[in-house]
Amino acid sequence: MFINETRLKVRYVETDKMGIVHHSKYYVWFEVARDEFIAKLNITYKDMEDMGIMMPIIETHCKYIQGAKYGDEVIIKTNIEEITGVKVIFQYEVFRAIDGKILAKGSTVQAFVSSKEFRIINLKRKYPELWEKIKVV
Amino acid sequence: MFINETRLKVRYVETDKMGIVHHSKYYVWFEVARDEFIAKLNITYKDMEDMGIMMPIIETHCKYIQGAKYGDEVIIKTNIEEITGVKVIFQYEVFRAIDGKILAKGSTVQAFVSSKEFRIINLKRKYPELWEKIKVV
Amino acid sequence: MFINETRLKVRYVETDKMGIVHHSKYYVWFEVARDEFIAKLNITYKDMEDMGIMMPIIETHCKYIQGAKYGDEVIIKTNIEEITGVKVIFQYEVFRAIDGKILAKGSTVQAFVSSKEFRIINLKRKYPELWEKIKVV
Amino acid sequence: MFINETRLKVRYVETDKMGIVHHSKYYVWFEVARDEFIAKLNITYKDMEDMGIMMPIIETHCKYIQGAKYGDEVIIKTNIEEITGVKVIFQYEVFRAIDGKILAKGSTVQAFVSSKEFRIINLKRKYPELWEKIKVV
Repeated sequence: MFINETRLKVRYVETDKMGIVHHSKYYVWFEVARDEFIAKLNITYKDMEDMGIMMPIIETHCKYIQGAKYGDEVIIKTNIEEITGVKVIFQYEVFRAIDGKILAKGSTVQAFVSSKEFRIINLKRKYPELWEKIKVV
Repeated sequence: MFINETRLKVRYVETDKMGIVHHSKYYVWFEVARDEFIAKLNITYKDMEDMGIMMPIIETHCKYIQGAKYGDEVIIKTNIEEITGVKVIFQYEVFRAIDGKILAKGSTVQAFVSSKEFRIINLKRKYPELWEKIKVV
Repeated sequence: MFINETRLKVRYVETDKMGIVHHSKYYVWFEVARDEFIAKLNITYKDMEDMGIMMPIIETHCKYIQGAKYGDEVIIKTNIEEITGVKVIFQYEVFRAIDGKILAKGSTVQAFVSSKEFRIINLKRKYPELWEKIKVV
Repeated sequence: MFINETRLKVRYVETDKMGIVHHSKYYVWFEVARDEFIAKLNITYKDMEDMGIMMPIIETHCKYIQGAKYGDEVIIKTNIEEITGVKVIFQYEVFRAIDGKILAKGSTVQAFVSSKEFRIINLKRKYPELWEKIKVV
């Protein structure tokens, strides 16, 4: 299984008055981590969009174990949990870099969609070359 | 069961280059809807924070059915799915106001935590008056 | 001079760990206020975008006098400071609703641009009807 | 004059439906760049906050020359334009990494404030050691 690691520094704007990172921001981090993961497979979202493929998010989930704080560096471990011709599930684990403590675990489900008609497509059948690159479960 | 309705207009900044609202923003809407829900029970987050109670999010989940667009007005129906002394689960359904079409469904889980020691507290036992107001499942 | 008033409630996510609204969020409020202002002239951004006109921001400025807090309701007074065929300057004043105290003052400059070629257009000459509606200095 | 360079990749969430980065996000980038600048002086915001010093933003300004796009890497050149005992003005220039094209220019003004009483302090007099580190105009 291919696991990619993304390092991020918590941005001040990502905190809220509770003094920790707002829960919605983890999904932004997942997106950055997913981008990096895909880039490692020699694919970019941009390329896919240029090919007329979109990957809208159809489901998101996250469990928050400990709050990330301003000044923290975090490591996001990303892998593909499942992929079929029509959708892909990414899994993420967020760790605090300094002590390796787990902060959050999450997942996202994306459908493969043609950007013209905005309809679900079967990536495996329509874009076999891309499929070969992406199916690194 | 008490269900509260919140109306919001999609903000331009909430869209992304796909032309629809970014998936992370639904959690922001849920937060606004939750605030309004709680305010209807004659409680405010602010009051709770002043009492030394925090309600950090420990889990979030959302299914995206159709993308909200800039210019859309959305209605969020919020209810408490489950509440125990130590946590509360809110449920949300997001509808497009103009045609009543459902756009997303989600839930959030919050723990009751003392803001001093940042430890889980039993709201039912420690704040029975607040508990009476909030348990409107 | 036409002045429009927009009311907003501070969202939790808009605060940062300093306990006040993050300075970048005032520009989001200005955007919401601008939308409402334009809607009052019986124009919507959406309509303009459908006509092939974009209004990209080319300059922004804000002075922060006092911090808005979570729970605050704010009133944004918006007016057009200056408009020419090729650009429009909006001015904003943000007040705390409860005591009328001024929190911030800002301005934004937008150019009129065709969405096809992404080039500056003269709204006055190209869209005289729209021009008549919008020049409410 | 000390100039620091910060490299960032445009995040998907930072774009809006116009297909370019939302104007408010440049202020977030400025904040990240400012953090890095200060860290290079062997100071961190976190340290300052621990010492009881806050640096709230009292003014922001930005000119947008060309839109940053998703996939772009940007370089932010940051320097202190002016510093007095009570305030500091940072200046920023944002360039597209691939061709060195300038995208935006901005500035921010921050006051030095004690976090206890939230009142302006004279950094030069109250924290001469910190002052020596920071006055790198």
